[in-house]
Amino acid sequence: MNGAHSLLATLTGNGIGVCFANPGTSEMHIVAALDQVTGMRCVLGLFEGVVTGAADGYARMAGRPAATLLHLGPGLANGLSNLHNAMRAQSAVVNVIGDHATYHRRYDAPLTSDIEGTARPFSHWVRTTPDAASVAADTAAAVAAARTAPGRVASLIVPADAAWSALTAAPAPVQAVVPAPPRVPEPAVETAARILRSGHPAALLLGPQATREAPLEVAGQIAAATGSRLYSPTQNARITRGAGRVPVQRIPYPVDQAVALLADVRDLVLVGAKPPVAFFAYPGKPSRLDPPGTRVHELARPDQDVPGALTALRDALGAGGAVPRRAGISRPALPGGALTPAKIGAVLSALMPPDAVVVDESITTGRSFLADTAGAAPHDWILPTGGSIGYALPCAAGAAIASPGRRVIVLESDGSGMYMPQALWTHAREQLDILTLVFANRGYQILRHELSNVGATAGGPRAEALMDLGRPDIDWVSLARTFGVPGSRAATADELARQVAAGLSAPGPRLIEVAL
Amino acid sequence: MNGAHSLLATLTGNGIGVCFANPGTSEMHIVAALDQVTGMRCVLGLFEGVVTGAADGYARMAGRPAATLLHLGPGLANGLSNLHNAMRAQSAVVNVIGDHATYHRRYDAPLTSDIEGTARPFSHWVRTTPDAASVAADTAAAVAAARTAPGRVASLIVPADAAWSALTAAPAPVQAVVPAPPRVPEPAVETAARILRSGHPAALLLGPQATREAPLEVAGQIAAATGSRLYSPTQNARITRGAGRVPVQRIPYPVDQAVALLADVRDLVLVGAKPPVAFFAYPGKPSRLDPPGTRVHELARPDQDVPGALTALRDALGAGGAVPRRAGISRPALPGGALTPAKIGAVLSALMPPDAVVVDESITTGRSFLADTAGAAPHDWILPTGGSIGYALPCAAGAAIASPGRRVIVLESDGSGMYMPQALWTHAREQLDILTLVFANRGYQILRHELSNVGATAGGPRAEALMDLGRPDIDWVSLARTFGVPGSRAATADELARQVAAGLSAPGPRLIEVAL
Repeated sequence: MNGAHSLLATLTGNGIGVCFANPGTSEMHIVAALDQVTGMRCVLGLFEGVVTGAADGYARMAGRPAATLLHLGPGLANGLSNLHNAMRAQSAVVNVIGDHATYHRRYDAPLTSDIEGTARPFSHWVRTTPDAASVAADTAAAVAAARTAPGRVASLIVPADAAWSALTAAPAPVQAVVPAPPRVPEPAVETAARILRSGHPAALLLGPQATREAPLEVAGQIAAATGSRLYSPTQNARITRGAGRVPVQRIPYPVDQAVALLADVRDLVLVGAKPPVAFFAYPGKPSRLDPPGTRVHELARPDQDVPGALTALRDALGAGGAVPRRAGISRPALPGGALTPAKIGAVLSALMPPDAVVVDESITTGRSFLADTAGAAPHDWILPTGGSIGYALPCAAGAAIASPGRRVIVLESDGSGMYMPQALWTHAREQLDILTLVFANRGYQILRHELSNVGATAGGPRAEALMDLGRPDIDWVSLARTFGVPGSRAATADELARQVAAGLSAPGPRLIEVAL
Repeated sequence: MNGAHSLLATLTGNGIGVCFANPGTSEMHIVAALDQVTGMRCVLGLFEGVVTGAADGYARMAGRPAATLLHLGPGLANGLSNLHNAMRAQSAVVNVIGDHATYHRRYDAPLTSDIEGTARPFSHWVRTTPDAASVAADTAAAVAAARTAPGRVASLIVPADAAWSALTAAPAPVQAVVPAPPRVPEPAVETAARILRSGHPAALLLGPQATREAPLEVAGQIAAATGSRLYSPTQNARITRGAGRVPVQRIPYPVDQAVALLADVRDLVLVGAKPPVAFFAYPGKPSRLDPPGTRVHELARPDQDVPGALTALRDALGAGGAVPRRAGISRPALPGGALTPAKIGAVLSALMPPDAVVVDESITTGRSFLADTAGAAPHDWILPTGGSIGYALPCAAGAAIASPGRRVIVLESDGSGMYMPQALWTHAREQLDILTLVFANRGYQILRHELSNVGATAGGPRAEALMDLGRPDIDWVSLARTFGVPGSRAATADELARQVAAGLSAPGPRLIEVAL
């Protein structure tokens, strides 16, 4: 038994059974140990952002962490942007990074870099394990850190000699000690109850832990009893929704629309969410989206027991018997003719199977999709959280692995889909039931809007060249073929409906280029 | 005039005429300014690693920096691995990163992160410019830092309001003050001369500044006069070579071969290079590649005047009249039949046009390519420096833009080529004369070797699954089509020769999948 065995045994002994990996030489003993320690499913990504994005998607759907396996500082670096998204999603990730053998570091070999310094801006917890004997305790500490509410990124650095050195005795298993999230103190609940009873226009802003089915039910009772509204941040890790579920209104991305939505709110109760802020600063527009003078009350911090706080609030309001408003079922007729965003939304709403998982990175094309699908069959909707684009294809791989038997639908933009397209290979290798729709409008369409939103002079040809994804057009059907994913192109609503229906009934991955 | 105009005017006023970019909302004023400030060619990459890798390739061939334009912390993060390679190549890069408006940072919007902390492990110089009035001076300081010998990565963070705020007066142009590299002190030259006169087996280890044509000529005279050998590190940014050039022996990657090559060296003179070290640690093998007891003398540090030190050494040795050994021309006959690495090397050597630029990331397939092409038409050979794979396709884009009229040949592995394949789109958009050969052996072949090199138990099926790039096979011809690059597949040496000849005679990019 060596440090690598100890690492894997400690991970699996603490309930981590999936590892997304892109290893190199310094991780070879860990790779070899996979055939000697049972219980770890290892999934290869061809790029490290695929690995970390999949771990994020896995955590969002499984509610527990996966591990990653990355190769030194540059391998970690390639995975950072999706760790940023994971942190903003409150996803638990045990991020394992190999390093040179400890005695080799001082030679400054080509791949040497400051791994801890690289990890720190994108991790809640960073530790380098010094030797094989320490691996078990440090791995358990990483698991505990990752699983500490609301879910954190824990980066554990494992030098090659810590992995390969023999342990003289099999170490006793080390159990991760995960602290329970603290209960919200009563005064915070009472204050929230008093606010909601006051009759002023009030809203609950529901963070990612409050938008799952059970806490949404409770929030729906509170809303029904008090007339308060239910909002979610523009970026939310996962919303459980569809016919029969309690609907929650997402705050829109465009600042003017967000400000208009919140204009008459006087009291805002934060439920594991931060105050609403604009995604970017725009000259002459506010950074805060709630109107000046809004009274903001924090019912629960994200690291507290958020669902428990909602239940306590409901009970303080005596709303246990209230019946929440629920979304009705609505299956629109399949549209025909030229493609529009509304028709795409109708196709989705009509054909979405029960218990689908939607991973949404549809940016400008998808502005109406949440509204369009409010009455679709019950499903989960995953949204960008950290704003780093390219997350959807990797995230979908992890979400699918966490959700066997459920269909994953990726709503992808052609700009965003170009950041980590090699995730499609993992969809194919693992034969995941993922249907990817790529909305090919041949541009960074959002930037064309943003150029005027920030008050920049209308772009000339050089600016336009940086927002144009044509010259040459990207052929998404060929891209799918590259990675062994069946692909097709839909140029009309009829074609889209036919191809979506076919894609949702066939096993394995599939891609549709939606030509806009 | 605003801060964005000031940024671009200062860059172009200091000789930076190319910017590789993947901008977002916070960079929109800089994008808009491209149409108002003349002299900046802006090249779009669909992923940030393409942007930074291209800047590295540009610097290696142009000998001066390009700028980048990246989007906040996660955009920077996606570009870090190729900045690592750039640092190890001693490439000058002015790395420009947009940030939220200064007043917006405290709201912790989704894309907020510690940008300076993210940049620091992969930059020699980091600064956040505070406001529009400071942009010119800070930009000039970034250029000066980047151009300080031997070439550095300077990261300049530009908040959105520093870019968009108006300047009351057009600022005076600020000139970057670039310190000249210090001359090597005479005692260092005299010591080296004494060592080389001693008659013991000696070698010069030539860093990246010593392997260009002119300093290599001088090194060749020193070698001819003293019998010393010329080596270059395994990883070297650029070697000018081919028929008529002074040959230099690259230290091989496998530790045993490197140790054998250096076994009888008694004196090692470092010429802008570090002592030779193993790429990775392997149990029971040395980290240092030169034999124990070797006397190591540093003639010149990389930040000193390396070519000047070589000239001073030659003159101290009175070797100004010596005639260096030069590589003879050797054009092998075109091979036929089944493909082997040696036949691929012969095709390259036979068909390489004069002044080609070869970007080599061929890993296991290409172990013999340097030897195979020693007598090819004169060319430059670019090697991996930092060991972060995926650099070749981005690097080639920058190298091609820096080298108009020269043909760029990429020798790519199928594992490495999957990290940043979207670089091919930039090849197509800019219609760069880049011929890419992908050696498709359907595996991380090097890891299969490394698994046993590090002494891990032979891999079982789980380990093997992490080194196998089949299931499904990657279709590189479809990948090329995705990005508008003409592609073909060669399964025999005859087919390869025909396709390489055709690819080198047609303008624009082309890709050949070499089926191994």
